[in-house]
Amino acid sequence: MSEEACIFCDIVAGKVPCHKVYEDDRTLAFMDINPVAPGHVLVIPKTHYENLLGLTPGDLAAVHQTSQKIAGAIITGLKMPGVAVLQLNGKGANQVVMHYHVHLIPRNRPKDGIEILEWEPKPGNTRSIKSKLQKIQDAL
Amino acid sequence: MSEEACIFCDIVAGKVPCHKVYEDDRTLAFMDINPVAPGHVLVIPKTHYENLLGLTPGDLAAVHQTSQKIAGAIITGLKMPGVAVLQLNGKGANQVVMHYHVHLIPRNRPKDGIEILEWEPKPGNTRSIKSKLQKIQDAL
Repeated sequence: MSEEACIFCDIVAGKVPCHKVYEDDRTLAFMDINPVAPGHVLVIPKTHYENLLGLTPGDLAAVHQTSQKIAGAIITGLKMPGVAVLQLNGKGANQVVMHYHVHLIPRNRPKDGIEILEWEPKPGNTRSIKSKLQKIQDAL
Repeated sequence: MSEEACIFCDIVAGKVPCHKVYEDDRTLAFMDINPVAPGHVLVIPKTHYENLLGLTPGDLAAVHQTSQKIAGAIITGLKMPGVAVLQLNGKGANQVVMHYHVHLIPRNRPKDGIEILEWEPKPGNTRSIKSKLQKIQDAL
């Protein structure tokens, strides 16, 4: 997929709206509108890279610094005992959007699987997403 | 768990052996002996941190630079169409070893789930682990 046809590039450019959690020069964090769990956040570099292999050291470091910051806010703001950080590369790993992105998935029950197998877009409830967004931002 | 009782710190210190993939000043990569998939690698900072929240920017960047390097070698060396990067924080996320670690899991079948639900230590075949190690190192 080219950068021109990339939904995440469109979000960065402001052409497509998002529930923004955090933004800095290099990165953007926003709520996943197809959450695997309530409070599911995506962190992306603003520059388009298809996957992990292409990121510059600066953008790679920046994405994970933002992920660290947001993970702390998820734990504090959502009172979660755990966060899974997941990042998929390639169709073989079930990567859907071909713009590098890190999933931050709140986890409060070890017995829950993360359904990578069944990971099809399932729209979340907008009110719930906004509520989680507010709590995460309050904790930033 | 204190640093003194940490299996990964013991591996860093050379008190416990590992199938080493790569090492630099800040990081160590080695084969997971309980692989979720053949070629499963762990990347850790040499310094002990319980989870993502505590890492210094330098160690955080270094771990992900090493992960990037090894992920490329997994794709090339094992001829894999995908790699999942997974990092679990907290008992709520089913973190087992309380020393920050990044899982690099080769993925060649999108229909396979990553069984976080059932993620109990299941020893892998040593010969298979060593074979994958060699192929990854050859591709580094």
